[in-house]
Amino acid sequence: MLYIGIDLGGTGIKAGVVDDNGKILCKDSCPTGVERGHEAVIKDMAALALRVVEKSGHTVGDMKAIGIGLPGVLDPRTGHVPFCTNLGWHDVPIVEEMHKYIDLPVFVDNDATVAGLAESVAGVSAGAVNSVFITLGTGVGGGVILGGKVFSGSHGVASEIGHMVTVAGGEPCTCGNSGCWERYASATALIREGRRLCEAKPETALLKAVDGDPKAITAKHVIDLAKAGDPDCAALFDNYVHHLCVGLSNLVNLYDPEVIVLGGGVSHAGQFLLDAVRAKLPAMIFYKDMPYARVELAKLTNDAGIIGAAMLGR
Amino acid sequence: MLYIGIDLGGTGIKAGVVDDNGKILCKDSCPTGVERGHEAVIKDMAALALRVVEKSGHTVGDMKAIGIGLPGVLDPRTGHVPFCTNLGWHDVPIVEEMHKYIDLPVFVDNDATVAGLAESVAGVSAGAVNSVFITLGTGVGGGVILGGKVFSGSHGVASEIGHMVTVAGGEPCTCGNSGCWERYASATALIREGRRLCEAKPETALLKAVDGDPKAITAKHVIDLAKAGDPDCAALFDNYVHHLCVGLSNLVNLYDPEVIVLGGGVSHAGQFLLDAVRAKLPAMIFYKDMPYARVELAKLTNDAGIIGAAMLGR
Repeated sequence: MLYIGIDLGGTGIKAGVVDDNGKILCKDSCPTGVERGHEAVIKDMAALALRVVEKSGHTVGDMKAIGIGLPGVLDPRTGHVPFCTNLGWHDVPIVEEMHKYIDLPVFVDNDATVAGLAESVAGVSAGAVNSVFITLGTGVGGGVILGGKVFSGSHGVASEIGHMVTVAGGEPCTCGNSGCWERYASATALIREGRRLCEAKPETALLKAVDGDPKAITAKHVIDLAKAGDPDCAALFDNYVHHLCVGLSNLVNLYDPEVIVLGGGVSHAGQFLLDAVRAKLPAMIFYKDMPYARVELAKLTNDAGIIGAAMLGR
Repeated sequence: MLYIGIDLGGTGIKAGVVDDNGKILCKDSCPTGVERGHEAVIKDMAALALRVVEKSGHTVGDMKAIGIGLPGVLDPRTGHVPFCTNLGWHDVPIVEEMHKYIDLPVFVDNDATVAGLAESVAGVSAGAVNSVFITLGTGVGGGVILGGKVFSGSHGVASEIGHMVTVAGGEPCTCGNSGCWERYASATALIREGRRLCEAKPETALLKAVDGDPKAITAKHVIDLAKAGDPDCAALFDNYVHHLCVGLSNLVNLYDPEVIVLGGGVSHAGQFLLDAVRAKLPAMIFYKDMPYARVELAKLTNDAGIIGAAMLGR
């Protein structure tokens, strides 16, 4: 069987025809153009999907379903996307709109969930019955696979792992709470702490690396200096990894998955990040004598969105 | 079909014959006598089970399985209980020992898990596909039911919700971490904060209520004074409920269950606790416009251990 997978992001739309094993047969992309409103975006999304089907040498009739991953959630009661900050969407009837152009079952899920599903089908967590995928980006997103299937809970709001509070009373979060994990484990956290460092210690190597402009600091600046042995950035990265591991140990205590997959921008720190996490996590695990989740880096990166979205319909 | 359910605690063993609907047909109990070692305890447990079967007018042949709930976990790889502080057990081959006396399949799980299963079969969460049961006692235990079944994760260590860190760097925990939820949401937390209050403010009503002995403070003292309107205990209880809700919102974000059931000692505060939680939780929920778990009080209390243990074999 074949499936259409669509990765809908704030700047670009990617679509592909994917087989049962999560292999992309053919793919294509176009800009999102969010400013045009959801109807135009969904029309383009459908056109891109039809184009990629044609390019693959197949017909819509050969497709079993169409899956869409986006930076939001679907309300399972309505088939609408209640809100989606990156796209400026509010209460968008995405399933209904897609059906104007393509007569196939439409499945929609969060982009982190979709990436987690992709890894569990064709990536680093392939074969694992239970796995948790984490995007360490602007925020922290989660894709939870339980029993080989996407776990969305009873109301479609599960797996919001970035808004798990790990430091009650800590950094204020965009969600209204304070001390959410993503305030400590995202790329944004590394940037914030880097800026604080530059303010507190103007002679630090980090400020030199950005030519004296704290606003230019990225997570990569901090990580690269930590890798190079700069003590200030090393301490900052160490504290980042500590907070990352606090949340990971919570995920072990609650989901007890076989694999935890680290994805998103910060995961590009690669083996350096993985070694730091693997060194710090064991002491924080509750059942120290029992096996627990192995932590791995995401494998599919760029194609995860297409593959995972397609697999929603499997 | 009929099942034997055994509730093994630090002071007493309770056993019952239970039907498919979680109804106890007959029950009995005996003291645990932990000091005699695990072999004697398991022998008594088996004898009690056989006695209760006979009392019910049935035979062992009428029983489908035997389930045991205890304050620990079973290592699914070995069928052993790796450790169990309350019973002083270490690496106890419980399944093997039980088979010396009764030839029935033996299922073992954590007491909080078992109580959660009981509530989901015959209690307040009956009919819910996904539910989380929480014991607010000396510690905080959890029983997670997903898809109508006990969720134990990939290595049998899931649902250790009491050791989810909610205040990184906070109160030291017996587990070696600091800031575990149970340091803030257990009866022990109310007692600790009550003692601190008495130390900081010797004229407080709480110290009078215990005749000047802070060691005599129980969670009930604090709750009763809060109920009666004492401002010091009301503030302490309010802070307790805040931390309880931090963890509950994490459970919503991660498990998104239909029902969260509050059990254990602190839940005897009843409607007073429930009202406080229901007033505070909504502002902390991430998806404020979508439905989420309702919070309820446990219903089965004393019999939950027998019923839930029996239902392990269903």
